[in-house]
Amino acid sequence: MKSEPIASLRALKEQFQKLPGIGPRSAERLAFHVLREPVEYAEKLSRAILEVKTKVVHCNTCFNLTETNPCAICSDPGRDPSELWVVEQPQDLMTIEATGLVRGLYHVLMGHIAPLEGVEPGDLTINALVDRVRSGCVREVVLALNPTLDGDGTALHIQSLLSDLEVRVTRPARGLAVGSQLEYATVGMLEAAIRGREQM
Amino acid sequence: MKSEPIASLRALKEQFQKLPGIGPRSAERLAFHVLREPVEYAEKLSRAILEVKTKVVHCNTCFNLTETNPCAICSDPGRDPSELWVVEQPQDLMTIEATGLVRGLYHVLMGHIAPLEGVEPGDLTINALVDRVRSGCVREVVLALNPTLDGDGTALHIQSLLSDLEVRVTRPARGLAVGSQLEYATVGMLEAAIRGREQM
Repeated sequence: MKSEPIASLRALKEQFQKLPGIGPRSAERLAFHVLREPVEYAEKLSRAILEVKTKVVHCNTCFNLTETNPCAICSDPGRDPSELWVVEQPQDLMTIEATGLVRGLYHVLMGHIAPLEGVEPGDLTINALVDRVRSGCVREVVLALNPTLDGDGTALHIQSLLSDLEVRVTRPARGLAVGSQLEYATVGMLEAAIRGREQM
Repeated sequence: MKSEPIASLRALKEQFQKLPGIGPRSAERLAFHVLREPVEYAEKLSRAILEVKTKVVHCNTCFNLTETNPCAICSDPGRDPSELWVVEQPQDLMTIEATGLVRGLYHVLMGHIAPLEGVEPGDLTINALVDRVRSGCVREVVLALNPTLDGDGTALHIQSLLSDLEVRVTRPARGLAVGSQLEYATVGMLEAAIRGREQM
């Protein structure tokens, strides 16, 4: 890869290259695109990048991403608080929510247990989840984690923590392709999985 | 595609989607990446985007991208001003420059003649090129344009404009791409290679 002699162009390429899936070639293409576009585009893009960091926070109740607290879902009176859908990350919540099939509330774990990567149960929002179930009116907890080894392990851990409480613990049916990422599941696959959720 | 309920996240996705080669899925991945990274990354990326628009200009002499005027190449006393390499765009200049084989100067046309796309000779820096050749000490003009219909057409146009001046007009050799398979060579490549065959 040739080195870029123009300092500001080189700096922009370096920053673009830190984005996922952006290699040196793509970073160069993006940088030249910014250079060619009117300054208004650069300003909009630049502002959008900063605003997303300043405005977006985690909901204190469900840990979903939000600009208000509690988030729009937690503060929606039309939701059924007896049904709690537990997901690994905000993208998973959005994917499920987009089906329009869930009328309950959510709980975002912020990851899954992965001892080899140094992620212990205490690093996730599992304690907050147990507190919510213990103190609330939750009758069903749906563990909608990724159908992977880590996701299943995390689900088992949560199931054992909830076993003393009077709550039904279910999971989406295995219509999901085992080993895939929930974030990328099709609506059809999700629909089968949500409608057919099974007793754990 | 699911719609994004968080306004600032939706705004960032929309801006990312305007970049070349970035679809809805990639834009979402990039936006979540920015969200996950420390705010310092967002600030650096944001600043780099703005600075490239404010600092980078075109060299008044060769129209290459630069932060100084004239650019580093035009103001380098070690360069041979009798040899002028004409390219379509700044990226082409960088590609040639990276070989380290050119000791002359450059001239960036800022595109090629393409009447169907509304690009007339007057939209390019062709007049400035002719002025440079007329007033300077240029002895050879190398038309290093893309070996395409548009590139060739533009090269012919420039050649005719320079025909009255005492200057040698050349172009980079054409033939088989080194390292490629002859079996897969295009008719155009083969024609150039066969007509221009060289003594071994």
